Amino acid sequence: MLYSESLSKLIEMFKKMPGVGHKSAVRLAFNIIEMSKEEADEIIEIIKNAKSKITYCSVCQNLTEGDVCEICSNEKRDNTTICVMETPKDVIALEKTREYYGMYHVLHGAISPMDGVGPEDLKIKELILRVGEGNIKEIILANNPSIEGEATAMYLSKLLKPLGVKVTRIAFGLPVGGDLEYADEVTITKALEGRREI
Amino acid sequence: MLYSESLSKLIEMFKKMPGVGHKSAVRLAFNIIEMSKEEADEIIEIIKNAKSKITYCSVCQNLTEGDVCEICSNEKRDNTTICVMETPKDVIALEKTREYYGMYHVLHGAISPMDGVGPEDLKIKELILRVGEGNIKEIILANNPSIEGEATAMYLSKLLKPLGVKVTRIAFGLPVGGDLEYADEVTITKALEGRREI
Repeated sequence: MLYSESLSKLIEMFKKMPGVGHKSAVRLAFNIIEMSKEEADEIIEIIKNAKSKITYCSVCQNLTEGDVCEICSNEKRDNTTICVMETPKDVIALEKTREYYGMYHVLHGAISPMDGVGPEDLKIKELILRVGEGNIKEIILANNPSIEGEATAMYLSKLLKPLGVKVTRIAFGLPVGGDLEYADEVTITKALEGRREI
Repeated sequence: MLYSESLSKLIEMFKKMPGVGHKSAVRLAFNIIEMSKEEADEIIEIIKNAKSKITYCSVCQNLTEGDVCEICSNEKRDNTTICVMETPKDVIALEKTREYYGMYHVLHGAISPMDGVGPEDLKIKELILRVGEGNIKEIILANNPSIEGEATAMYLSKLLKPLGVKVTRIAFGLPVGGDLEYADEVTITKALEGRREI
């Protein structure tokens, strides 16, 4: 056996993490072994802290350390528009553009019967409740352009339209800076379908 | 602020790990946030366990979970030859060749005045004590083919020769400036076969 039991477990733990292959896992495991006890304790503390403090915002279901997140409690933002996202990472991607000043709603996934994820596993009930409160004028569906994302967007659209709210879907087309020559057929088709007069 | 305080700390923690850039750190941090409390507790347990159980073998100074490591307590191995390595990872690299049946001695580094590492910071005293016990016929210096590794090998050679033991250096089949840990098995085997008395 090349690695002792505890070291093997440490390597396997890192290998389970996304994007970490065998060599990286070994390097990360040895990094843990070689650090001081204080440094390891600090890592443990940071993980414990993150797990205990970070919860879902009671309004938009994004990650937060309080009850209501910074975005939901920011009175300068437009609270008549909600952008529906699949994950907190998507919110960060959109925030980075500095072009959107409305609110968010994080579903935490997409409907995927193959993976056993149904509408009841997503934060859809919470979205309907928010819309039911009356103030909302537009819901932007920013689900991913995948089969699951599209299915979820269709499902939400059918649920939300009867509530008298405007429902929109973000545009699909060629990525800016991309090359038509290298775009896939579906993207080109979407770009063509979504053409606008200039 | 795009990330909350606890999340930022988690991302920074991962960024300090070797070979982890910003994007990987964010991905790993979100992986921790998204996992169940039980999974996070398991990670904490594995790290704690590794830090408390893994110590240095009292004979060869390699990593072990008992007092004496598996290699040192294996009676089938040739205990008249000691291969001197810089790190436990180097031992694993040599073990993978399945071409070496002697013992090891892990120095845990190399003499490097630039980094403030002197002979007294390495497990050299322990090596001299082992040789002093008399049974040893050959010491193979498998320090890395770097300036520090060479300097350490020269230092050890001068210390060990007066003790009446044969001192050899692995051959420079290894690419100079490279790292033993990442060398392929055949190269390591060639280097072992081509060792010469110094």
